Amino acid sequence: MKAEIIGIGTEILLGQIVNTNSAHLSRKLAEIGIDVYHHTAIGDNKKRLYDSIKTALIRSDIVITTGGLGPTVDDVTLEAVTKISEKPLILQKKIARLIREHFKKRHIKMPENNLRQAYIPKDAIWLGNNTGTAPGLIIKINKKILIALPGPPREMIPMFDSHVSAYMKKQYKSRCVILSHTLKTTGLAESQLHDKVKGFMRLSGDTTVGIYAHPAQVDLKITSKAKNLLSARGKIGVIEEKIRKKLGNLIFGTDNQMLEENTLKLLRNRTIAIAESCTGGLIASRITDVPGASKNLLCSIVAYSNKSKTELLDVSYSTIKKHGAVSSQTAKDMAVNIRNLSGANIGISTTGIAGPAGATNKKPVGLVYIGLSTELKTFVKKYYFTGTREMIKFRTSQAALDMIRHHLLG
Amino acid sequence: MKAEIIGIGTEILLGQIVNTNSAHLSRKLAEIGIDVYHHTAIGDNKKRLYDSIKTALIRSDIVITTGGLGPTVDDVTLEAVTKISEKPLILQKKIARLIREHFKKRHIKMPENNLRQAYIPKDAIWLGNNTGTAPGLIIKINKKILIALPGPPREMIPMFDSHVSAYMKKQYKSRCVILSHTLKTTGLAESQLHDKVKGFMRLSGDTTVGIYAHPAQVDLKITSKAKNLLSARGKIGVIEEKIRKKLGNLIFGTDNQMLEENTLKLLRNRTIAIAESCTGGLIASRITDVPGASKNLLCSIVAYSNKSKTELLDVSYSTIKKHGAVSSQTAKDMAVNIRNLSGANIGISTTGIAGPAGATNKKPVGLVYIGLSTELKTFVKKYYFTGTREMIKFRTSQAALDMIRHHLLG
Repeated sequence: MKAEIIGIGTEILLGQIVNTNSAHLSRKLAEIGIDVYHHTAIGDNKKRLYDSIKTALIRSDIVITTGGLGPTVDDVTLEAVTKISEKPLILQKKIARLIREHFKKRHIKMPENNLRQAYIPKDAIWLGNNTGTAPGLIIKINKKILIALPGPPREMIPMFDSHVSAYMKKQYKSRCVILSHTLKTTGLAESQLHDKVKGFMRLSGDTTVGIYAHPAQVDLKITSKAKNLLSARGKIGVIEEKIRKKLGNLIFGTDNQMLEENTLKLLRNRTIAIAESCTGGLIASRITDVPGASKNLLCSIVAYSNKSKTELLDVSYSTIKKHGAVSSQTAKDMAVNIRNLSGANIGISTTGIAGPAGATNKKPVGLVYIGLSTELKTFVKKYYFTGTREMIKFRTSQAALDMIRHHLLG
Repeated sequence: MKAEIIGIGTEILLGQIVNTNSAHLSRKLAEIGIDVYHHTAIGDNKKRLYDSIKTALIRSDIVITTGGLGPTVDDVTLEAVTKISEKPLILQKKIARLIREHFKKRHIKMPENNLRQAYIPKDAIWLGNNTGTAPGLIIKINKKILIALPGPPREMIPMFDSHVSAYMKKQYKSRCVILSHTLKTTGLAESQLHDKVKGFMRLSGDTTVGIYAHPAQVDLKITSKAKNLLSARGKIGVIEEKIRKKLGNLIFGTDNQMLEENTLKLLRNRTIAIAESCTGGLIASRITDVPGASKNLLCSIVAYSNKSKTELLDVSYSTIKKHGAVSSQTAKDMAVNIRNLSGANIGISTTGIAGPAGATNKKPVGLVYIGLSTELKTFVKKYYFTGTREMIKFRTSQAALDMIRHHLLG
């Protein structure tokens, strides 16, 4: 069973709005077990829309359009869909009544052109719209199905969830679902991770592994197509176990889990304090995004100037003078001192050159030192990060959080 | 001149990522005066990708693809594009060198499969990638042009802006441009701003004003269609002046300007220090996103616990006991003390309940105090914000930055 989705609206083609409807529908269709092979976006143009729907109905079993059902002359979907159905337009009195009520409830006078929305092609199934006036349509055309939904997500999503989803499940006694499970890693480049897991990348059959790179994070997504959720979960579990054997602690979390969240969990009752230079507060901010962070985070001192490094963090002037603010020695002192100053179990420090200015011959933009200090040991790691200022800040925060995580995992 | 955009990646068709590239490219093409008639998204499937590009090259003059240029077997764009070009793949030694340098700079061993990206179809123009390893490609096919760009926006956007845009402008002398100009505000809800500017919202003709709400920010977008950039800028300028008369300092910036950036600019030589409780370092992090922030930001102390508020910020224990950590008095002491402690010209403080826990009968989630202290005066503002923990943190940082901005504007 193949589906495709057509987004309608000139504002999509002008880039004035991002077409999130196609992504939403794709996710929902995957859950039902329907494959989506094409997304298309078309402007408010009758001819091109007609052609696109025609093409889609040839190569796919289900075609879903979003948008173009409004009451104005711009809205051409109803016309195109009616022409394709080869049926006459019929006034649906119940829709007309619902539209009148919609305006009455809001104490707004109904513009007469709104009643255009009460005319639908003969034999079409229409779908009520709880948040707007445009009804949705389901039209059978030979053995194919054409579904027209409104464009605004606040109208489209509830209409799909409450009507279309159930209709599809009934039509396609699909004993098949597509389920995905993501394993998240940080610390390796995409190609390095690929090297480790390439044996899993060419799996044949219904379970596949994809690799997706994000800033300072590479995900492995295991996707399984199976008769039901239980079976899909089982197939994913088998692959996950094998990948985990290979990657071990490189995997910091799954699906919607965040690095900061999982690192905090590992802290349990231990406390942490941070001395941030080049990250400028980003590590503390990411940690405090997690509810309950106050249990573990005592404080962060963003010591951006040398003066604040000496005055607030007791880094000696001679250390900075001898080795520089961006040095292993400064990072070490910052980590040790913030731990002592705060009384925390773990002290973390960052110092580096986030750019674009500040580089020297020996210290390029992206050079970063991260320090970690506990009662038992203190160590500093040196990194060379690339990218914009914001990217270097983010990569540093990612590396620092991951350093804490690895430390806690032992 | 007709263009179309093809987004490549199974994760788009599964709805796992939203295809923002097409929207970005559409906006950029509109500015150059090139019409976009189709967006398509296709999975990592050689046959369907080949067919889609072929179809696109029949009906459009310019076809831009994004994605599928990575180093792994999943990435099928290079193969499809090469087949369409009917040219052999040639090793470009300079690309190979750049890829090697990319890894060397990061002190990472290059996996051999990365060198796949150094092979490009004969006669193709290749585009350097400053943020990744995949080069972009421009290939002439008869009188049509096929452009293949990488998928990650952080690679695609700079590549388009620095190479493709100029190439297109040179190739196509366009007849008409669509230009947009955005005025950004914070502090008012969308409906409040709408009330102030509704007279401009129903402009007829080629210049229109749209209102777009973001978290803690509402934008007005003036869009003009004209024969050339100069004429479009003129039309936009007339409306902008009228809107500015109405809104004054409510407008904090335009287009790509950020609130943190424009606030820093107003500081000139004055210094600032921050005492953050509920924002957890976010204000410092946003300020340090701006290059050169070290000139103005001396330090930020993220005093998350009461203990750190007393020990690091000298807020008296009795103040916290009497009024609470979330109170006007604590915010005031934090702002005054961080200013004195750091020697900065301006002290800023935040304290509030970011949630989801921590609320009391009298102090709901979202209650926030922001303090501002200078040598001449100190004041505290009270806010009730809504939303998630992250949203409340962001709204607080937005309000704090805007408070500094208004203070500096007098």
